[in-house]
Amino acid sequence: MPAVMRNMNLISRCQGLYRAARLSEDTLKSCHHGFVLAICAHPGESQDFLAEHLCLNKSTVARSLGTLEASKLIRREVHAEDRRVTLVFPTEQMLSLYPRVREIARDWNRLITEDCTEEELTLFLSVLERMAKRARTVAKEGKETV
Amino acid sequence: MPAVMRNMNLISRCQGLYRAARLSEDTLKSCHHGFVLAICAHPGESQDFLAEHLCLNKSTVARSLGTLEASKLIRREVHAEDRRVTLVFPTEQMLSLYPRVREIARDWNRLITEDCTEEELTLFLSVLERMAKRARTVAKEGKETV
Repeated sequence: MPAVMRNMNLISRCQGLYRAARLSEDTLKSCHHGFVLAICAHPGESQDFLAEHLCLNKSTVARSLGTLEASKLIRREVHAEDRRVTLVFPTEQMLSLYPRVREIARDWNRLITEDCTEEELTLFLSVLERMAKRARTVAKEGKETV
Repeated sequence: MPAVMRNMNLISRCQGLYRAARLSEDTLKSCHHGFVLAICAHPGESQDFLAEHLCLNKSTVARSLGTLEASKLIRREVHAEDRRVTLVFPTEQMLSLYPRVREIARDWNRLITEDCTEEELTLFLSVLERMAKRARTVAKEGKETV
């Protein structure tokens, strides 16, 4: 079986190094960029939505949101009609970081695809999209479908 | 610019959930699987080699190795000829986890590629390999090549 993930995880870690080099803001840890992108694109969604959207454990999400809240990057609100639900909003401070985080993500995408032809990239992205759907399904089943 | 990384990072996080569901050993945090694979495949290499190989900051590697050492999964040795170099060896305990970690990685790779034809996968992997090389280069340059 081909080592799909070895290279994907490698690219992901390289992106982390690139981001850390470019994103000097002390307030934002490099690992939280996914939260910035998700929360700014979906303001006022619930913690559970974010866990589902980002494919992370609820406890991981709660911990990361705690850190972001302590840094005044988000605020949390209990849902008016269902007190078990916590809604997450970006603060002005997070919104001001958003364009920079997106720019760095766009630059990285462009830089690593520079060597590819448009045709290669189209097929690559269509396979990647299908893999991502499949990955969500397998992770959700949370069991060995072997 | 296409959102290459959104899907790659998503697949990577889904893999984390899948691994956590299958790897019940308390001694091994899910995020350390990359270290198990690297250290067991390259026993006796230096910390700096692991940072380079895994594309991680030296400080991140040092922290993770500290955790693995505390869990008796690795042992570290100062290089006999160069005391600035620290070598990393897997313990019996880590070596006993290795086959399971590899099996889970192989299963995941197989499960997420099930929907792809052999032809699609061949092209996908060749593009992915090129992207990984490019990612290493861009991350190493550590500067804006924009």
